[in-house]
Amino acid sequence: MKPGTIFLVSILILLYFNSARSQDTSDMKRKLEPLRNNFALAIHGGAGNIIHRNLTPEQQQQYKDKMSEALRAGYAILDTGGKSIDAVEASIRIMEDSPLFNAGKGSVFTYEGKNEMDAAIMDGKTLKAGAVAGVRTIKNPISAAKKVMQKSKFVLISGKGAEQFAKEQGLEIVDTSYFFTEERWKQLIQVRDSAKTDSLKNDSTGSIINKREDHYGTVGCVALDRHGNLAAGTSTGGIVNKKYNRIGDSPLIGAGTYANNKTCAVSCTGHGEDFIRIVAAKTISDLMEYKGMSVSQAAAEVIKNKLSEIKGDGGTIVIDKNGIITMPFNTTGMFRGYIDRKGKVTVKIF
Amino acid sequence: MKPGTIFLVSILILLYFNSARSQDTSDMKRKLEPLRNNFALAIHGGAGNIIHRNLTPEQQQQYKDKMSEALRAGYAILDTGGKSIDAVEASIRIMEDSPLFNAGKGSVFTYEGKNEMDAAIMDGKTLKAGAVAGVRTIKNPISAAKKVMQKSKFVLISGKGAEQFAKEQGLEIVDTSYFFTEERWKQLIQVRDSAKTDSLKNDSTGSIINKREDHYGTVGCVALDRHGNLAAGTSTGGIVNKKYNRIGDSPLIGAGTYANNKTCAVSCTGHGEDFIRIVAAKTISDLMEYKGMSVSQAAAEVIKNKLSEIKGDGGTIVIDKNGIITMPFNTTGMFRGYIDRKGKVTVKIF
Repeated sequence: MKPGTIFLVSILILLYFNSARSQDTSDMKRKLEPLRNNFALAIHGGAGNIIHRNLTPEQQQQYKDKMSEALRAGYAILDTGGKSIDAVEASIRIMEDSPLFNAGKGSVFTYEGKNEMDAAIMDGKTLKAGAVAGVRTIKNPISAAKKVMQKSKFVLISGKGAEQFAKEQGLEIVDTSYFFTEERWKQLIQVRDSAKTDSLKNDSTGSIINKREDHYGTVGCVALDRHGNLAAGTSTGGIVNKKYNRIGDSPLIGAGTYANNKTCAVSCTGHGEDFIRIVAAKTISDLMEYKGMSVSQAAAEVIKNKLSEIKGDGGTIVIDKNGIITMPFNTTGMFRGYIDRKGKVTVKIF
Repeated sequence: MKPGTIFLVSILILLYFNSARSQDTSDMKRKLEPLRNNFALAIHGGAGNIIHRNLTPEQQQQYKDKMSEALRAGYAILDTGGKSIDAVEASIRIMEDSPLFNAGKGSVFTYEGKNEMDAAIMDGKTLKAGAVAGVRTIKNPISAAKKVMQKSKFVLISGKGAEQFAKEQGLEIVDTSYFFTEERWKQLIQVRDSAKTDSLKNDSTGSIINKREDHYGTVGCVALDRHGNLAAGTSTGGIVNKKYNRIGDSPLIGAGTYANNKTCAVSCTGHGEDFIRIVAAKTISDLMEYKGMSVSQAAAEVIKNKLSEIKGDGGTIVIDKNGIITMPFNTTGMFRGYIDRKGKVTVKIF
């Protein structure tokens, strides 16, 4: 070959590898390692209109510290050969117990000034799942979801029935006042006031949801354990000022939460109704299983295309059966992080 | 060619066409017609262990008459150019109002002796959806689901909140005693008694679900209208003797109910938890969209393979964008029927 031809071919080869790389790249991409040695865990703390001027450096650090703590709690279980489902529960409990996130303590208020929480968990090995919706007295809804999966014939239970079940199972029950936080209460008043003074924009439910104004704050976790099993979990207080015992996507298997050892584990965050309509989590899995997409391609297709097509907001964290993690979102930010096999923590907001 | 060769070739051609036909055949297969002229509607009234000796000829006729009435109600709307979503609602209301089916009047009782109903509806054109769960006073839950879709920002609302919404929307509210039927009450007593006398088999929820003993009786409808739009709806009283405000697959978009103009409209019936775990309805749609399966292949794959793999029971009715209908089930029977463009009704049980 002539030098010119060699140069041209080299350029083409370089371009090809670069495009293949960028197609499958996320900032969370991990090296493939032998399965028994490989494990991984990722979390989110909600996606939304998170901008620098709304969070002081101190607040940002608070979020990062709490996410790091959550990651380490899950890591401790995976590192010692524990199950992904237990790691998911452990990580989410840390975030539920923190007032920083819209789940457990720190949940948003409904129109009526109540906290109504939803959670789900799914085991990718057995396809067993458990979920609770609209619970008001269970300290850790994610643990109730796990009990539903393990100890009942049902997948989804709700309201007072779910609370009774949690009590029978010996889970911690708290007074509804436990979930009160000053900041969330102020947020409700603000949103309710703006709904009143802006009644022309009010929808017929009487419930203004300021899609662009707030981040949603749902928490979630996905994990791959050393046995090669995937799990996913999501927990949330839902949408501020919600009415009519609304249930979001988080407790709905296939919408906000899904896990399948064949493909991936998924936890979503954002405007729940949009995730329900596109059955987001299952669609990511199906794009991998039926269309042969990589985890990054499948998650991007759902968040950047399908969600955006219906003008939906949010993001997702997904881990595949090889431990590759991707975390796309179409909002300005998403609280998110992952921990690698050696315990190195990475957390991001914007 | 020699006569022998011609004979052999003819046989091969015949075999080929027969195999192609059987692969894509259901007793519901319809001719393809120009879209504007084509419309179709199918219903189910539940799948389960329905056997001849449990239904007298008179009872079978009652079911067939009521299903025919439901089919004609939807047909009347489609025939005059109405919307599939309205046809779905109309057909389901007929079955909700009949004590024969486990939806609306005739719903099964919970462990506590209550009726808690779920319903969902979805518009395949817009991917908008609405659903209610655990409602006790709304005469026609399917109409409440439609109002949620049309008049609220939410997809799924539940319990007392959903009842309040229905009331505000002017839907008919009834006393809980309206839903009482002698037959369903006896069924509850029987199931509760067998749970008590058979406590060794009792699961930890204290709720025996006699998977093999009863048909589930959920009702559903799928339709294609003259505008080329698909819709699906499902309504149910859930599972007899259920506890903890259990929510089944019917009101969950992607599990028991789904519609998308790109692919198909789906309504499922059976043991709800299994349909949730495999996200049945969305999987049928995804097998068509991403794997290029026909509607019959996709529905069969989910019911005969995926559902059976997790030892699930039930069936589904699916209509594709061309009006082709398929109705697979893995139980001994499924109340089902369809009406063709000329108004000819076909109803079946076994």
